[in-house]
Amino acid sequence: MSEESSGSSHKVEVVFSPALFPVYFDNTNCTVVVIDVFRATSAICAAFESGVDSLIPVATMEEAIAYKAKGFKVGAERNAEVVEGFDFGNSPLTFADGKFKGESLVLTTTNGTKAIDIAKTAKRVVIGSFTNLTAVCDYIEKEDRDVLLLCAGWKDRFNLEDTLFAGAVAQQISKNLRFTNLSDSTIASINMYDSAKGDLFNFLGDSSHRKRLSRLNMEEDIIYCLAKDKSSIVPVLEGDKIVRGN
Amino acid sequence: MSEESSGSSHKVEVVFSPALFPVYFDNTNCTVVVIDVFRATSAICAAFESGVDSLIPVATMEEAIAYKAKGFKVGAERNAEVVEGFDFGNSPLTFADGKFKGESLVLTTTNGTKAIDIAKTAKRVVIGSFTNLTAVCDYIEKEDRDVLLLCAGWKDRFNLEDTLFAGAVAQQISKNLRFTNLSDSTIASINMYDSAKGDLFNFLGDSSHRKRLSRLNMEEDIIYCLAKDKSSIVPVLEGDKIVRGN
Repeated sequence: MSEESSGSSHKVEVVFSPALFPVYFDNTNCTVVVIDVFRATSAICAAFESGVDSLIPVATMEEAIAYKAKGFKVGAERNAEVVEGFDFGNSPLTFADGKFKGESLVLTTTNGTKAIDIAKTAKRVVIGSFTNLTAVCDYIEKEDRDVLLLCAGWKDRFNLEDTLFAGAVAQQISKNLRFTNLSDSTIASINMYDSAKGDLFNFLGDSSHRKRLSRLNMEEDIIYCLAKDKSSIVPVLEGDKIVRGN
Repeated sequence: MSEESSGSSHKVEVVFSPALFPVYFDNTNCTVVVIDVFRATSAICAAFESGVDSLIPVATMEEAIAYKAKGFKVGAERNAEVVEGFDFGNSPLTFADGKFKGESLVLTTTNGTKAIDIAKTAKRVVIGSFTNLTAVCDYIEKEDRDVLLLCAGWKDRFNLEDTLFAGAVAQQISKNLRFTNLSDSTIASINMYDSAKGDLFNFLGDSSHRKRLSRLNMEEDIIYCLAKDKSSIVPVLEGDKIVRGN
């Protein structure tokens, strides 16, 4: 969309659904931040904070089963619950006791790992969550490229929590003049974050996924996932693996 | 998405891009409101208000050329400008002097007529714009079905002005207890409309399409398209034609 460009400032675009990624992804020389606040990207950040060495994200159950057969410790979540027979799901609290320190894990989730998969041809793929917000913003600014903030959503539908995080990142990095070419989706996300940031938990009270998790008694996870800057680590994709990027 | 349903209240879902329509359209028994504020649906409403009898929306230039060859008066717009050799584009001001009164027209536009085309298997397809906002809300409530508010966007990208109109409709109809099952995209649209409604024109100051139209000296069109309730007519799709629906 050359008509959207202005001067030398980088584009900052929020992609509200993995199904829209091809519409926005017109140049591989960009930083893609994959966002699945409830809960995949929050869990991945928690894993690295707890000392996990690397994590292989896979999109399908078939791949997860194959890794399990090879002896890997594998996490698998579908529809917000741990898939039976796997070692963990996508709760960030799984990693609280450091039991996977130094290990190489595998993870498949309903939305998050699929979003990572579709982004993988970008120059840089970064894992973002409120728990590493400031670290992600600093990393993006150092990368100094166009930015796509890719919301994993829920089965290709728009969701509020990923949009709020995208808005938080966009608001922060657009203070830097190198990141001021904002798309309509970015303007909308910043506007929404601005009206929600005083109390994210309550703003999300009516959101579909918070209700889904509340039904499953996952309030503790929700509170964890909305807490800012618990970690200064930025997980990034290197080949097929997520590793520590800073 | 049966898990999103609650009781007997109808779903109200905003679809931010025609590319997401298949994700949300899980039941043909619904009312789809097609929204292209700048400017196709505003122009269609203006056409009916000026006395146009019917309007055939076509998605492609090929169809438009074929109708022109048959002697129809045909409007064609691409990238915000009238296509050379056609009778008009998608400016609502085209219809101000009533020169097409009683006529059957044909129209193709960059985004709006394509959105109408993808929605056509729904039970009811309605043309919405700020200029017939209240009439559209009343019509939806009488139809008494699930509602999809389909934003035409810009080449499958999210845009602000269509979202604001979707938020205006959702805010109004959700006062009726029959329309309170709101998706995350609907909650977001209402939130955005709430923060913009005091001054839509200025809120849209940075939007991509307002800038696009401003470059083309179309400020007068923008002001027209953001004025509420200039018409009480609801254009609806009947077979391949748009006709007056109320």
